[in-house]
Amino acid sequence: MKVHTEYLTFNTSQQYEMVHITSQVEAIVRRSGIDDGICFVSPMHITAAIYVNDNEDGLIEDISTWLEKLAPRWPGYKHHRTGEDNADAHLKALLLHHETTLPITHGRLDLGTWQRIFYAEFDGQRSKRVIVKVMGKEKD
Amino acid sequence: MKVHTEYLTFNTSQQYEMVHITSQVEAIVRRSGIDDGICFVSPMHITAAIYVNDNEDGLIEDISTWLEKLAPRWPGYKHHRTGEDNADAHLKALLLHHETTLPITHGRLDLGTWQRIFYAEFDGQRSKRVIVKVMGKEKD
Amino acid sequence: MKVHTEYLTFNTSQQYEMVHITSQVEAIVRRSGIDDGICFVSPMHITAAIYVNDNEDGLIEDISTWLEKLAPRWPGYKHHRTGEDNADAHLKALLLHHETTLPITHGRLDLGTWQRIFYAEFDGQRSKRVIVKVMGKEKD
Repeated sequence: MKVHTEYLTFNTSQQYEMVHITSQVEAIVRRSGIDDGICFVSPMHITAAIYVNDNEDGLIEDISTWLEKLAPRWPGYKHHRTGEDNADAHLKALLLHHETTLPITHGRLDLGTWQRIFYAEFDGQRSKRVIVKVMGKEKD
Repeated sequence: MKVHTEYLTFNTSQQYEMVHITSQVEAIVRRSGIDDGICFVSPMHITAAIYVNDNEDGLIEDISTWLEKLAPRWPGYKHHRTGEDNADAHLKALLLHHETTLPITHGRLDLGTWQRIFYAEFDGQRSKRVIVKVMGKEKD
Repeated sequence: MKVHTEYLTFNTSQQYEMVHITSQVEAIVRRSGIDDGICFVSPMHITAAIYVNDNEDGLIEDISTWLEKLAPRWPGYKHHRTGEDNADAHLKALLLHHETTLPITHGRLDLGTWQRIFYAEFDGQRSKRVIVKVMGKEKD
């Protein structure tokens, strides 16, 4: 049984941004040498999330619009009494669930045809880290 | 340490349907021979989800109504410019989080009295796959 | 490879309550002796959830208000025909996703500076259990 850990860093040019990271996660799985197991992916921040869905521009825009509707930017959040102005980013991250787990079979991410991994940034324009931990069996 | 993988296939008669799958997942855990560990369950599609909650008809209807309110079927989504008409199914799947992990203790799913596993289909009437990966220790 | 399981019990004084549990989960990770792996945390109930976010009172209030807006307490849910009155608690738990997985590196939870673990109770004032399962490699 083996565990392999790497950290990715993102510094988005926009405050809100969806970054397609499937190939970066796949490269980590390959480097791990793990043949059968799981891959855990999570931001180390509370204003970002990981989600799995389609890499289609219209849908990405729909997801962003939908998150804004359900967890809108708004000055009146109680969290803002601390001087922060990003309470909506926390709520958006909660809505998507911050972390995800992915299956690995035969040394590769065992995803469906359209499943792609995204880093969802809701408070960007600064350096933020994502942990990727791969755990499982090496090839016999 | 052992990893055991199976795939389930669902082809629902309705476009939207909640399918109770606890006994199918339990059977896979039993076949895995794993005594202590975790069980990962995930659709291999981006318009379906796995959730854990009560197997009570009224509540299942409440969940469906609630999902429709928060992520409604609507012609105007940008994703539909591709010819698709199911953007709401993607949003509903995101809301429930597509995958879940379950604990295994003494060779069985270690769930509470009322915890039941559901496959939530939001774009059915076609064959769709769910991956179940069990990982952990065999009995000493 | 080792698996270590413990159960926590919560009996909140309020019906709705957010309980900060990072130190309790950290103590279990320490007792597990696991150096590198993952930690799975989940209520064994369908009216509670685990979430990871900031331990800031204003934000906790914002999260509670937001959950009430998206999944309001309301007498008309179909689930209430069974005699229950807590359908909103099920929906709130679904919204936050009931379980979470956390990374462990060098024998400790590998969380970002502000990531804290919360037990979100939506139907409290009675004894409820949370399972914590730690899985991974012991120190070489």
